[in-house]
Amino acid sequence: MPRALDFFFFVGSTYTYLAVNRIGDVAAKAGVPVRWRPFSVRAIMREQNNSPFTGKPAKMNYMWRDVERRAKRYSIPFRSIPPYPVDPDELANRVASLSSLEGWCPEYTRSMYRCWFLENQTPGDPEGLRTLLRQLGKDPDAVIAKANSQEIRGRYAGETDAARSLGIFGSPTFACGSEIFWGDDRLEDAIEWSRTYDD
Amino acid sequence: MPRALDFFFFVGSTYTYLAVNRIGDVAAKAGVPVRWRPFSVRAIMREQNNSPFTGKPAKMNYMWRDVERRAKRYSIPFRSIPPYPVDPDELANRVASLSSLEGWCPEYTRSMYRCWFLENQTPGDPEGLRTLLRQLGKDPDAVIAKANSQEIRGRYAGETDAARSLGIFGSPTFACGSEIFWGDDRLEDAIEWSRTYDD
Repeated sequence: MPRALDFFFFVGSTYTYLAVNRIGDVAAKAGVPVRWRPFSVRAIMREQNNSPFTGKPAKMNYMWRDVERRAKRYSIPFRSIPPYPVDPDELANRVASLSSLEGWCPEYTRSMYRCWFLENQTPGDPEGLRTLLRQLGKDPDAVIAKANSQEIRGRYAGETDAARSLGIFGSPTFACGSEIFWGDDRLEDAIEWSRTYDD
Repeated sequence: MPRALDFFFFVGSTYTYLAVNRIGDVAAKAGVPVRWRPFSVRAIMREQNNSPFTGKPAKMNYMWRDVERRAKRYSIPFRSIPPYPVDPDELANRVASLSSLEGWCPEYTRSMYRCWFLENQTPGDPEGLRTLLRQLGKDPDAVIAKANSQEIRGRYAGETDAARSLGIFGSPTFACGSEIFWGDDRLEDAIEWSRTYDD
């Protein structure tokens, strides 16, 4: 029986755009359940002095070209390079954390990435966030208040601790038990690992 | 007609172990000619303040596990984590540069990686290098003298300049004209790009 896959991600990671759009279909076809687990990769990267793109223009240029090529390969729309970096206060990520508690994380995250990549909106911008939440049938004030509560801040920090304990340093990362797979390009490997996992 | 693929690599890059063992078969099957082009990724990384693993134990641990898993997937032998980092004076790389001029780069590089990954020898160690060169039917003194000559130092620096001009920041990188693909896991994408290239 396939083991569940933990999908650790950060709204603001660029390659996560691909994973957010692919994981649903890929996992469903393989019969692998997925848990969406937003965490602060930014906090972990700071702790580890791991800054993959800031101050590294060659690597940054390549990353955008690679994301564009990969999106094309998967028939995922890509218009132009969106705002970056985003979500300085991690509000969009705390909303993701709340949504993962309440069961609406996949639709929220996909919508947020669509707004970011295709409509040049900036995750974390309160006005765009309110509009998006209304489109999802949510009460923006209530959601934002909860996302700023100690409960959700604690949940988000706890998920970041869980990621750190697993040795996670980047987003997206797929975890099957203690086995971790970093990068959208390892999604299939992670699914395969989950499918063949034998407790 | 397929366009030639430039295989930019550094002896000392870990993922390059996979590419060195895969590129011959993958390219031959696709009918894509390959040019082996050793360069100093270390010089470029220093310039760009890009240190992917040093001081980053979580990322380093993951990298070795990922290399091991990937090697298994491709039936490439992997015994245990080899010495790292290696080739401090880049002598093994200058020999690679010489070999690329003289036409024996693939066999040299594959042998060097085999000694490094499977026999725990350190690329750049003069004694191991001499033994390996003798096994390839070369005169070690003559090869090392040439590798230390101004001509080969200039060639190696020139290839590093070429890589930098293309926006290359890591090893292995596959280039088809100005289109670059970073990482062993992009080899198939690069081959596909070369096959469908239309001048």
